[in-house]
Amino acid sequence: MIEVSVKTGSRRREQTRARLLDAAHEVFGEVGMAAASVEAICERAGFTRGAFYSNFESKEELFLALITQLSEDKLEQVAGRVRELASGSRSLDASAIVNQVVGVSLGDGMEPQLVAEIRVQALRDPRMAAAYLAWQDGLRVRVERIIAQVVDAYGVRLRLPVPDAAQLMLDLSDDTCTRAAMEGRSRDEIGELLNARLERLVVVLVEAPAG
Amino acid sequence: MIEVSVKTGSRRREQTRARLLDAAHEVFGEVGMAAASVEAICERAGFTRGAFYSNFESKEELFLALITQLSEDKLEQVAGRVRELASGSRSLDASAIVNQVVGVSLGDGMEPQLVAEIRVQALRDPRMAAAYLAWQDGLRVRVERIIAQVVDAYGVRLRLPVPDAAQLMLDLSDDTCTRAAMEGRSRDEIGELLNARLERLVVVLVEAPAG
Repeated sequence: MIEVSVKTGSRRREQTRARLLDAAHEVFGEVGMAAASVEAICERAGFTRGAFYSNFESKEELFLALITQLSEDKLEQVAGRVRELASGSRSLDASAIVNQVVGVSLGDGMEPQLVAEIRVQALRDPRMAAAYLAWQDGLRVRVERIIAQVVDAYGVRLRLPVPDAAQLMLDLSDDTCTRAAMEGRSRDEIGELLNARLERLVVVLVEAPAG
Repeated sequence: MIEVSVKTGSRRREQTRARLLDAAHEVFGEVGMAAASVEAICERAGFTRGAFYSNFESKEELFLALITQLSEDKLEQVAGRVRELASGSRSLDASAIVNQVVGVSLGDGMEPQLVAEIRVQALRDPRMAAAYLAWQDGLRVRVERIIAQVVDAYGVRLRLPVPDAAQLMLDLSDDTCTRAAMEGRSRDEIGELLNARLERLVVVLVEAPAG
């Protein structure tokens, strides 16, 4: 009985967190992070401030949880596609790999803005900095695993240590998506730009098979 | 006579701009961009709001001019070192090149924060976006020229088109400096981290000489 009630409690807690995250996402899209008050987010989610503060210490922590969720969902999609690849063709074609693996995984259109605002907060506040860095390290580790799987599946060698390759891909993606958002490009165009840049990088990173 | 007075006028105008930029730099360091009001900047520089608005359309434009100046000063230093290199040794050593060329060119310690805040503005406001993109394009073109000079001086070949290589170096630098600032690292440590990452990238970008 105790176990069941704990499970129910934790499921309810997860639902509360999920609704707060959805509400924060909506409010952020409407007014940005600075103007998205805890009050507005609670009102949108239909919760009290008490419910908010039993789940998150601050608005900043909530937004970091939101960007973590968005980026993990995206990388989970990529990892799923890599697992499919690993059981398929073995011929190395950078363009095909990038398109299959990365292609459809563009995140939410508001991501560059959200990341940029969180970064400003993290540069100001050491606690947010620690959380931001932990999020970024987690992203890099996920990309490292994806690269390692591709490397295994195709039996290729990289010219850079996997962590360096992963970080370069993240840096390139962040810059490409940020600038493309400023240029007002559509989701499809952003995807094409990102894939084209990643593809050129992958060609350089993979050592040509001995001739 | 007319020419002289025009020159004097434009020199005074330049001095006014320079003092406003210095004042903005100081006020930014104290309170950040959001809280750095046009009034506070004018007071620090000893000018009226009239003088401000005859030089800049907005606070955002002023901060973009400031980051442009800081980054151009830095790249000018790098370009100067490359010109010296071009007349010196011809043996290719990625570590020596990166250390000589990039080494001492770390910018102002407040740069990551300033860039991050300007980026948020540019993601919100199409006019700022256009100015931000023009600044970034200008940076990339300067880095392209530096790379082209190094490539010429050492007679090497790159594995990536020069614009791609330049953008990757900018992306890597931005990420490295931002994260290092969050980690509270010293200027020297940031320089070492940046050089180490750039060096590993340069080794990959340069095609090994045949033979």
